[in-house]
Amino acid sequence: MSRVRVESFSISLDGFGAGADQSLENPLGVGGKALHGWALTTRTFRKMFGQDGGETGVDDRFAARGFENVGAWVLGRNMFGPVRGPWPDGSWKGWWGDTPPYHCPVFVLTHHPRAPLEMSGGTVFRFVTDGFESALRQARAAAGGKDVRVGGGVATVQQGLRTGLIDELHIAIGPVLLGRGERLFEGVDLVALGYECAEQVRTPNATHVVVRKKA
Amino acid sequence: MSRVRVESFSISLDGFGAGADQSLENPLGVGGKALHGWALTTRTFRKMFGQDGGETGVDDRFAARGFENVGAWVLGRNMFGPVRGPWPDGSWKGWWGDTPPYHCPVFVLTHHPRAPLEMSGGTVFRFVTDGFESALRQARAAAGGKDVRVGGGVATVQQGLRTGLIDELHIAIGPVLLGRGERLFEGVDLVALGYECAEQVRTPNATHVVVRKKA
Repeated sequence: MSRVRVESFSISLDGFGAGADQSLENPLGVGGKALHGWALTTRTFRKMFGQDGGETGVDDRFAARGFENVGAWVLGRNMFGPVRGPWPDGSWKGWWGDTPPYHCPVFVLTHHPRAPLEMSGGTVFRFVTDGFESALRQARAAAGGKDVRVGGGVATVQQGLRTGLIDELHIAIGPVLLGRGERLFEGVDLVALGYECAEQVRTPNATHVVVRKKA
Repeated sequence: MSRVRVESFSISLDGFGAGADQSLENPLGVGGKALHGWALTTRTFRKMFGQDGGETGVDDRFAARGFENVGAWVLGRNMFGPVRGPWPDGSWKGWWGDTPPYHCPVFVLTHHPRAPLEMSGGTVFRFVTDGFESALRQARAAAGGKDVRVGGGVATVQQGLRTGLIDELHIAIGPVLLGRGERLFEGVDLVALGYECAEQVRTPNATHVVVRKKA
């Protein structure tokens, strides 16, 4: 059965899912690099960015499994491009250069219709203007029986949780305070929504928590 | 220099500082026992409740240091008694029996004036009706040069953080989802308030974080 998963979603010690003031120059926002530090040092992420080496323990296991059996992605608007910047004028092709690390169809939520964008390495960005549930439906159809990974940001994950359409959520509570930003669990009562804590592992860099819909 | 400290303050994975529906029968609220589980298994807490044994590792080190060099406490109303229950009618003497684990003056915030309550073992409950800052001032004076520990609950800690009067805050992110309740960092921007993360240690039971005012 194809599942809908959020993976490697970093939140701060005080609960924020993204650094504030994300920009073209600082795509992870203020404090964002430290927030994602547990992932950036893993072999999985280093390899993705063409670098050798990297950590191969628990952090890497979580990073790696986030890419296993994924047939399509859904991305919120800010995951694809900066809030203020050259997108949606048509020239923006995502944060990742010519060969994005998806290698499958990626459904990007936006208010601006745009033709599909075929990148090298198998990634095709498709732009969806009629909302999260439509994007998820299209992603499921495109995933060929594999899972759909919802990449964020905060608003998109919240929507998925509130509508009960996300089966599994892996968060990594990273080692920083952000003070402000978007709070992942704002207005989201995981217990009432039927989620339970299925797994948790603490490493020196992060507190990994897997939340899953009760069977 | 006498400091104002919050110690062993448990919050859930989703950021809540207390279980919902706290009552006389269930003083820690729904899910509260699991939230505080890391503490309840330590030697320090077991000893406090007259039990032998207990964990003596990192969790216990954090539990124990919360009681070191404390000369007085400030407690919010709900830390002393249930929201609905026999208090403030005068018969309620706290959650802890005849010998509370404080052994020093404890200033309890309330809207109801009440004479001081002298317990065995050195604890004296004093009831303060003119607010947190007054309670803290009185606690400082009574602490004889030692530190003041602010015991909670959430609203009291938030007030202390917002007014900048808390020097150090130890939170333990416990292994449970609560879904709802009081969020510790609601409306509290620790970074803007000048706090930084001074220490963090992850154990199988909790993510310990010490937040301190920058010098």
